[in-house]
Amino acid sequence: MLQSDPRNLSMVMDLYEMTMAHGYFCENRLEDVVTYDVFYRRNPDGGGFAIFAGLEQVLDYLENLHFSADDIAYLRSLNLYSEPFLQWLGTYRFKGDITALPEGSIMYPNEPVLTVNASPIDAQLIETALLTQINHQSLVATKTQRIVRAAEGRPVSDFGARRAHNMDAAVYGARAAYIGGASSTATLLAGRMFGIPVSGTMAHSWVMYHDDEFTAFKRFAELYPDNAVFLVDTYDVLRSGIPNAIRAAREVLEPMGKRLKGIRLDSGDLAFLTKKARRMLDAAGLTDCRIVASNSLDEFTISSLLQQGACIDSFGVGERLITAKSDPVFGAVYKIVAVSHGQACRPKIKVSESFEKITNPGRKRLWRVYDQNGYAVADLITLAEETPDFSRPYTYVDPQKPWEHRAFCAHTIRELHTPVMQNGRRLAASPSLNDIRAYVRRQLDHEIWQEEQRFDYPHHHFLDMSPAYYQMKMELLSQMHFD
Amino acid sequence: MLQSDPRNLSMVMDLYEMTMAHGYFCENRLEDVVTYDVFYRRNPDGGGFAIFAGLEQVLDYLENLHFSADDIAYLRSLNLYSEPFLQWLGTYRFKGDITALPEGSIMYPNEPVLTVNASPIDAQLIETALLTQINHQSLVATKTQRIVRAAEGRPVSDFGARRAHNMDAAVYGARAAYIGGASSTATLLAGRMFGIPVSGTMAHSWVMYHDDEFTAFKRFAELYPDNAVFLVDTYDVLRSGIPNAIRAAREVLEPMGKRLKGIRLDSGDLAFLTKKARRMLDAAGLTDCRIVASNSLDEFTISSLLQQGACIDSFGVGERLITAKSDPVFGAVYKIVAVSHGQACRPKIKVSESFEKITNPGRKRLWRVYDQNGYAVADLITLAEETPDFSRPYTYVDPQKPWEHRAFCAHTIRELHTPVMQNGRRLAASPSLNDIRAYVRRQLDHEIWQEEQRFDYPHHHFLDMSPAYYQMKMELLSQMHFD
Repeated sequence: MLQSDPRNLSMVMDLYEMTMAHGYFCENRLEDVVTYDVFYRRNPDGGGFAIFAGLEQVLDYLENLHFSADDIAYLRSLNLYSEPFLQWLGTYRFKGDITALPEGSIMYPNEPVLTVNASPIDAQLIETALLTQINHQSLVATKTQRIVRAAEGRPVSDFGARRAHNMDAAVYGARAAYIGGASSTATLLAGRMFGIPVSGTMAHSWVMYHDDEFTAFKRFAELYPDNAVFLVDTYDVLRSGIPNAIRAAREVLEPMGKRLKGIRLDSGDLAFLTKKARRMLDAAGLTDCRIVASNSLDEFTISSLLQQGACIDSFGVGERLITAKSDPVFGAVYKIVAVSHGQACRPKIKVSESFEKITNPGRKRLWRVYDQNGYAVADLITLAEETPDFSRPYTYVDPQKPWEHRAFCAHTIRELHTPVMQNGRRLAASPSLNDIRAYVRRQLDHEIWQEEQRFDYPHHHFLDMSPAYYQMKMELLSQMHFD
Repeated sequence: MLQSDPRNLSMVMDLYEMTMAHGYFCENRLEDVVTYDVFYRRNPDGGGFAIFAGLEQVLDYLENLHFSADDIAYLRSLNLYSEPFLQWLGTYRFKGDITALPEGSIMYPNEPVLTVNASPIDAQLIETALLTQINHQSLVATKTQRIVRAAEGRPVSDFGARRAHNMDAAVYGARAAYIGGASSTATLLAGRMFGIPVSGTMAHSWVMYHDDEFTAFKRFAELYPDNAVFLVDTYDVLRSGIPNAIRAAREVLEPMGKRLKGIRLDSGDLAFLTKKARRMLDAAGLTDCRIVASNSLDEFTISSLLQQGACIDSFGVGERLITAKSDPVFGAVYKIVAVSHGQACRPKIKVSESFEKITNPGRKRLWRVYDQNGYAVADLITLAEETPDFSRPYTYVDPQKPWEHRAFCAHTIRELHTPVMQNGRRLAASPSLNDIRAYVRRQLDHEIWQEEQRFDYPHHHFLDMSPAYYQMKMELLSQMHFD
């Protein structure tokens, strides 16, 4: 883990991972290789896509995975595991291989976003922590991108730490929010750990602590003449907050040759109040004073405010961003898709009682198909041993309409997974957070249809299959008989 | 922090806390004493109460609060703070006093649940981390209690780690779930750190890894003859899962003199399938085989399943518990209520643009009023210097109906806050987690009206005021003039 986060997180796992790992150990199946895919089934908030985030922390976790003497003593106390297994755990390190989408990739339901090839034990032990990281950061990155989109170019700052689901959710949530397009965070540790720009204004307590509102603004302006943003809603925005802000700008800042940078509103009717505030500030010559709005905002309230003509220059977004309040569960799962025992590799499929829980079996490759303008028209799953030939029309199967004959003509493809870990070792340093953030922006600006980015009834990206892959899946399904 | 969690969390704070702290430093107001209350405004999910949780971690945090050389170097790089302040931060420790409800207390909106008396800097720096802990753990404890209530005595286990908002949310979420009444957690680190019982069964991967479902059950039964719970929905519950479970019970467990402990269903129509499964198990003589249900459960689905006559003996509850999905933001806030400068203590009130955001000002005491049967009929706020005399009828004000004349007769009272930290030092070890959990149960069983515990339109607990307190608040409000 990062230097400022030296915890051993190896025990953040469900008991059954250890129980099954012990089972594989007792069955002496350490030489087998199993393949697991991480994928999710549904875009949050009915959106058209999600953002893949958390990969760097997954790799940190895997490189650090080990069991301390205390961990093993605890496991021994459960009276579930054999002594040889507990001894073996003491020297355990993860030795598997990982391929994944680059962090920041636009991703879609039911396609593998990360694939593990490893021994049954290696693959089993990592399930929980791997899903927790990917689910959390992908959730917040995706939610933030929606909020940033609604803000139509105005900066969005993450103010969410106090409503986050504990410390990690604040810190890694700030990281994910930055990936999703937030321009800054209020959380100092996130600023320190990840180099995210930090921002903030003042609290009501500053205003209330001082004898009166003007004094509070005056003191703040004297301390921070270049960064003064006054919180104007402690008592009465229009009768007290704005007049005192204007007075402080004139009496404190202007004599120093400074301008009032901004005001913040954190309650009340933000559409009404920001329009009134804008007129009052402009009438006082403070046309360059920015208006910051906060108070339980999200993509829906921001869209509504802007549609009502609210005069807002930037947003502080807290609880609904950091918890992804409207849809706070990102449901990525981790499913076994193949088992190799000796030479033979057998694809595995889960059928289950729920149709939508049927998995895409087998080792596979994932490709993104682009049209001549560079827009992504579909993703394509092939067998692991296939390399699609796009130099001529390429016939594929849309699994929603397998009876149709379809082909890609004059398209290009790009393979989406890259190897990131081999034999338990990272293959390259993770990209910088700014590069990940820029990659998100680049895809959304140049590769992803606007029709997939709208909030209401977005286009659902196609997930197509090669004819050979589709045939393999159908054959596995048809072999399922229980009578 | 706990031994297994040696992180320095001091920088989990909003930038503005540091900015204002620097302001108080520059104003040289280190000898003032300010009072802040933590309170919340609305019960989650429209419920009748919430559970106060996270206090132990708040005290851990406060005892550990300090700034490392790296922290200070980072703060210096922001170019916001003076060098004397940064030097001073290097030796900073929290020296404030804290009173609070005991952890596990039933709490209600708009009453102080934790109060800080400290210097302006001490009080300001701790805001974010204190709220994050209390908000997260109170959220999950309260949500879990709703789920446990719906389960009507059946055990509920926390299976949520993989959908938690990162690692802390899994681990401290498990702690909060246990406080709220969960009987166990699947998360090993929570078991190790807090002594919570751990539980778990098997995953679909165990079944899919093996050549067939029966072999998977057979191997598991051989490994864990006393703890075998088979997951029966990998292929087909009624045609494959249950028959294979029965066969493994007969062919593997019974020859060892063991009984099949349980089966788990994780998909499909749980009402229909568990009733069918119960009949099949009973017909095979496995009347003692328990049925565990999981799959996106919460208090609403559990109530519905039980109302449909589903045959379920225990529940594994994941994503909707660990994220409190239906209402994932717990909105506790931290507001300044008084400032003491020299001898004078001035109460402070926040009026704001939103009526429901008006605070209860001043230093105060909080009492719970009980009837002759020991049930809590109201909470009561008094001035800090008042001790209500309940030996005779006690006249109080219901702030919702201040025109009525009301009195408590033959009631008893208990003060709710106890001092937990003085001059930055804990006054006593925190109670054990089992004691906190038992305290929740005891209040709900013996002190809290059933009418406050129902899900639909619960009774809203009264928050009354002493006449003197009410008068003080009204006077502060009437002094607010801005024209």
